[in-house]
Amino acid sequence: MSVPTEVTPLGVGGAIPARGRHLSGLTLRREGRMVLFDCGEGTQLQLLRAGLLGDRLEAVFVTHLHGDHLFGLPGLISTLGLQDREKPLAIVGPEGIRDFLGAVPGITFGEGPYRLDITELPEDTQHEVVYQTDAFRVEARPLAHRVPCFGYRYEETARAGRFDADAARAAGVTPGPDFKTLARGGTVLVDGREVTPEAIVGPERPGTAVAYCLDTAPCDGGRALASGAGLLIHDATFGDGEAARAGETGHSTARQAAEVARDAGARGLLLTHFSARYSETQPLVAQAREVFESAAAAEELVSVRVFPLEA
Amino acid sequence: MSVPTEVTPLGVGGAIPARGRHLSGLTLRREGRMVLFDCGEGTQLQLLRAGLLGDRLEAVFVTHLHGDHLFGLPGLISTLGLQDREKPLAIVGPEGIRDFLGAVPGITFGEGPYRLDITELPEDTQHEVVYQTDAFRVEARPLAHRVPCFGYRYEETARAGRFDADAARAAGVTPGPDFKTLARGGTVLVDGREVTPEAIVGPERPGTAVAYCLDTAPCDGGRALASGAGLLIHDATFGDGEAARAGETGHSTARQAAEVARDAGARGLLLTHFSARYSETQPLVAQAREVFESAAAAEELVSVRVFPLEA
Repeated sequence: MSVPTEVTPLGVGGAIPARGRHLSGLTLRREGRMVLFDCGEGTQLQLLRAGLLGDRLEAVFVTHLHGDHLFGLPGLISTLGLQDREKPLAIVGPEGIRDFLGAVPGITFGEGPYRLDITELPEDTQHEVVYQTDAFRVEARPLAHRVPCFGYRYEETARAGRFDADAARAAGVTPGPDFKTLARGGTVLVDGREVTPEAIVGPERPGTAVAYCLDTAPCDGGRALASGAGLLIHDATFGDGEAARAGETGHSTARQAAEVARDAGARGLLLTHFSARYSETQPLVAQAREVFESAAAAEELVSVRVFPLEA
Repeated sequence: MSVPTEVTPLGVGGAIPARGRHLSGLTLRREGRMVLFDCGEGTQLQLLRAGLLGDRLEAVFVTHLHGDHLFGLPGLISTLGLQDREKPLAIVGPEGIRDFLGAVPGITFGEGPYRLDITELPEDTQHEVVYQTDAFRVEARPLAHRVPCFGYRYEETARAGRFDADAARAAGVTPGPDFKTLARGGTVLVDGREVTPEAIVGPERPGTAVAYCLDTAPCDGGRALASGAGLLIHDATFGDGEAARAGETGHSTARQAAEVARDAGARGLLLTHFSARYSETQPLVAQAREVFESAAAAEELVSVRVFPLEA
């Protein structure tokens, strides 16, 4: 059994703060590590409320350079410095994010209390691994918005296959060092006969994947990012009645988000980035569920646990 | 009787959000007009909560270019644009504020949905009227902080002197047009004899003044801004026990803020910009009151009414 990944929406509003909704931001945590997707104004305040404003944050992935996804970054960077942070912070976003941060008073690269490792994605980026650790990696693909915009897929490192101890014993292997060798992918000799791991160890078990796709109209990039994901977080700015406006503004309806989830074979869908015109999100969820049942509205500071695809 | 000025603190925390306190921001309203002092991250969210996020805001006065006083400005400017604002917004702050705003994606000067009128204060500014309307004016003076920093004094336009109808009648003036002429400062003829307004109309009645002084150590600029003010809002980052630290960091203790209020002859004192180390502000208020009794802690979204010095 593997530890679940915890997804915590910090802001589920679109464009401007309204109806008590904060601007875009969402954390993803597992085993003491944390990354952040988008950083609208107020994100550090929401992190503080969630008890998550601190050192464990290691990377921020910004979808695009609209204020409601970006303007919380200067304050977050400053506050982490005032907290005496020493470890670097990775920041990934579209080209231009470095110039923006470079113009912020008090933010320096390399000379401040800690280092910012900035990765800029050129507008023509098609598919790129933008962050890699031993525990997970994050890849980016372009979305369909009014300005260059990238969605992200967080994918845990695959776990080794399941070790079949009965099969090993049946093949004459003695529990102990030979078991470990097989489990690590090595071959052992039993009475001069080779026993290979293929017969004893099952296939690698993929980790959970979580796709983060906003702001965007339904698009191939989003479907690729969401392919087989444990959870898709998708732009659902509008309801059915505003499909035309969604198309004009580079956003999605909740139903369209559900179509992406269905087409991509995702296991769950979290709707977010709700237009201020909707006082309640329940109608949007209902529209999505007509297409894809495992859909819910993201709620601020309400965590969702994403379990591995295989136990 | 004149309409009071309403002062609403939006954030009373210092440097970083903590203990539920937001970052610096304070509105001042009178007769449908509104200005804002400082604009830390989250200010637009606090304005929204206060029901004040809208068109009536006409000017923002930024004390200095530290993030906790500044980083809410990009989001506020953007949101006002998304609200289809048309009237210009004045922004006053230290030199460098134009470059910062100019580097913000989506913010343009003159080409956006509305105009930003930016006034930059050079570092050596000693005393300058930075904003003037028929109802009030705002002047700036330097404070004592670690970076160039300006305090502001909002001062209502003086009202005409009180009209003494009894004195006018005693001088033989008939109520009607001659009363109006006198009230407006004109001279009238009564049986060939001149009656001048000096004898009938009292001296001009000064409007309320409100001084906004943070971040700063006690200084002459602050005392001048607070001179005879109806209300002084002053940096009170620390308590007595941290006086040395206050001096080192360019801040004040609550007691020092009270000394400024007393020395300047202010009528009231609102303490703000509290360090996260103080869970309660009551001890700081008590220290201030030993020096200046009419002191209180600023509370977020709790308005203070400042009445004219003369009714």
